[in-house]
Amino acid sequence: MLVVKKFGGTSVANKERIYNVAKRCIEEYKKGNQVVVVLSAMGDTTDELLEKAFEINPRASKRELDMLLTTGEQVSVALMAMAINGMGVPAVSLNAFQVMMYSTSAYGNSRFKRVDTDRIRHELESGKIVIVTGFQAVNKYDDYTTLGRGGSDTTAVALASVLHADKCEIYTDVDGVYTADPRVVKNARKLNEVTYDEMLELASHGAKVLHNRSVEMAKKYGVPLVVRSSLNDHEGTIVKEVAKMEKMLITGVAGEKDVVRVSVIGIDDKPGIAFKIFNTLAKNKINVDIILQSIGRDGTKDISFTVAQGDLTGTLEVLGANKEALTIQEVKYKTDVAKISIVGAGMMSNPGVAARMFEALYNSGININMISTSEIRITVLIAENEMDRALNAVHEEFRLGME
Amino acid sequence: MLVVKKFGGTSVANKERIYNVAKRCIEEYKKGNQVVVVLSAMGDTTDELLEKAFEINPRASKRELDMLLTTGEQVSVALMAMAINGMGVPAVSLNAFQVMMYSTSAYGNSRFKRVDTDRIRHELESGKIVIVTGFQAVNKYDDYTTLGRGGSDTTAVALASVLHADKCEIYTDVDGVYTADPRVVKNARKLNEVTYDEMLELASHGAKVLHNRSVEMAKKYGVPLVVRSSLNDHEGTIVKEVAKMEKMLITGVAGEKDVVRVSVIGIDDKPGIAFKIFNTLAKNKINVDIILQSIGRDGTKDISFTVAQGDLTGTLEVLGANKEALTIQEVKYKTDVAKISIVGAGMMSNPGVAARMFEALYNSGININMISTSEIRITVLIAENEMDRALNAVHEEFRLGME
Repeated sequence: MLVVKKFGGTSVANKERIYNVAKRCIEEYKKGNQVVVVLSAMGDTTDELLEKAFEINPRASKRELDMLLTTGEQVSVALMAMAINGMGVPAVSLNAFQVMMYSTSAYGNSRFKRVDTDRIRHELESGKIVIVTGFQAVNKYDDYTTLGRGGSDTTAVALASVLHADKCEIYTDVDGVYTADPRVVKNARKLNEVTYDEMLELASHGAKVLHNRSVEMAKKYGVPLVVRSSLNDHEGTIVKEVAKMEKMLITGVAGEKDVVRVSVIGIDDKPGIAFKIFNTLAKNKINVDIILQSIGRDGTKDISFTVAQGDLTGTLEVLGANKEALTIQEVKYKTDVAKISIVGAGMMSNPGVAARMFEALYNSGININMISTSEIRITVLIAENEMDRALNAVHEEFRLGME
Repeated sequence: MLVVKKFGGTSVANKERIYNVAKRCIEEYKKGNQVVVVLSAMGDTTDELLEKAFEINPRASKRELDMLLTTGEQVSVALMAMAINGMGVPAVSLNAFQVMMYSTSAYGNSRFKRVDTDRIRHELESGKIVIVTGFQAVNKYDDYTTLGRGGSDTTAVALASVLHADKCEIYTDVDGVYTADPRVVKNARKLNEVTYDEMLELASHGAKVLHNRSVEMAKKYGVPLVVRSSLNDHEGTIVKEVAKMEKMLITGVAGEKDVVRVSVIGIDDKPGIAFKIFNTLAKNKINVDIILQSIGRDGTKDISFTVAQGDLTGTLEVLGANKEALTIQEVKYKTDVAKISIVGAGMMSNPGVAARMFEALYNSGININMISTSEIRITVLIAENEMDRALNAVHEEFRLGME
């Protein structure tokens, strides 16, 4: 069996944790399996490197930032190889140049184009545990690129895909995917199985356990994912195409505070204006989430939408620069908002799920600002300080804590 | 004009020093020159990485150590590119994979085999300052190797050679090559010019300013070297094939404490035994320096020789393991010894130089243990605690402090 295991930065933050990961990999190896390990940079390394960079040049180019940041994973993999070797098992560390992991040319946020398997296969066949740098790739100019947030998860899924791995295990500091964030909802329950689509919706709407790009790729190439804890031997959560039918309408709830509501006031009530606004934002790579349109006075209307907090400045700049063309009278924004979402493949065939969610919130005195839905998700925008209460109310309503 | 500039770890140890180097490179660039910069890892980075490695695995493999250490230079070059970019000048950082600097396969102590120029030329022609990682290369397995002590100097000379650079400047924390270590000999004088051979002898016998391998390569490929300070604009010392005849017999004196005298006692006084001893040591990659043979009693003889302190353990192991075959009765060693050497192309045509050196030492009451000479060098072994006094006495005798 070929197993890809991915460990994040906290799992390799110090000597003891490196030893812990080394032992887990050796256990797998001793079962007679081939083991590929993907690692992130140790602990806060990436943040420390960024700090150094911005001290030198606050507008450092993404090309040079990637050149700097990719050293972090290289340190991790070299130390891990030493740890595993020290425990008597052959191991070798490889970076993106050595594996030949090729990406698009976009620095800071590239995507894999092609990942070679020759070197890894060769090392696996010579009996070694192979340790690969996550988060990094090489573009057509022979420059390092990084894969953006959650990049090491994506590396693990990409390697699992090209190597036709039997399993891709994403190790994290929680036991798996939960019905809600266990720090917020006391009786949140770990899920045994979840579909790619449910995981995608959860990941895209606040569940931090996996990055949505890695789930997208796993779905596309049918890579069987397991999310599990690096601290214990619990089974974890399997992410796959069809999950076992549990008796649940809803798989989980997720909350997201990293959101701002932007309101564009008093635009002409003419066809095409709304399109122009969102087209302009899209051209500037600003992702808009929930949208609400309402009729204003005097032949004008208002449009509200949400963006990630990091995109607020860009959004205001873009709207400001195109104020006349977009017939905008005024732009307002509100940062103390949050989204909560319920996700579940079961809701497709069960009407009335939305109504139950809204009623549960109403009974808790929580006001709903905006609503957005997909086939397997319902998201509402509420006040930020009511998020934890809302998550508990909805979790309770759908009895997600029960087996 | 194409100029290669190499800066060591102390020259890039913090933000201010990085800025200082960036400014010097930009000055050169603004003169209309093409500039290639070779950097070492910042400050104590390499030692810190080694410490981390040995904490994880005291017997870490050289392959993984090289994988770890090469991150140090990559951090330096990325930060330098950011600094130069921040000052408004285009710059790009490159590592050994990007330049394609190929070496022999020996980890930890490789030698260059082939250095490509395409990428560097391309970046220079597009108007950029090119910043290259020193000390590292890639071997035929596509693994990182490091070049051993003084490796970044060698990188600079190799690049200057393949790029046919007009000048290769080695920046250091002193003003150039001195007639003696200025910290020991008060009136030591900076030399304006020195030949490759003199520099080689000085470097091989204790002058720390350049590593002998880089001088060897500069001599072989006729690369014009300049040793100068990164802290001021003084001219530095030019190292080249034929130096201007100064009125000096002797170019400089060097002292070296990193030496042990090993004595092999009571071996058979038969032909071939001495050869066997040194052949056995050579096979184990132990470099022997000064050798002295003396007749013992009862048809036996004694042989003394010096090795670097780091080779003492290996030497004792090798001799111990082959005690019978080499007919050794006893092995002794003495660590509190030092070598001092005088070097100068002028001594070839001037007999009596050795006698003057010995007399100067005798007049200072310093006892000579062993002697070794080359065409342009005389080395003596003395007690370690007399080294500084010996250097001053010899420096004075040959009036090296006078212009």
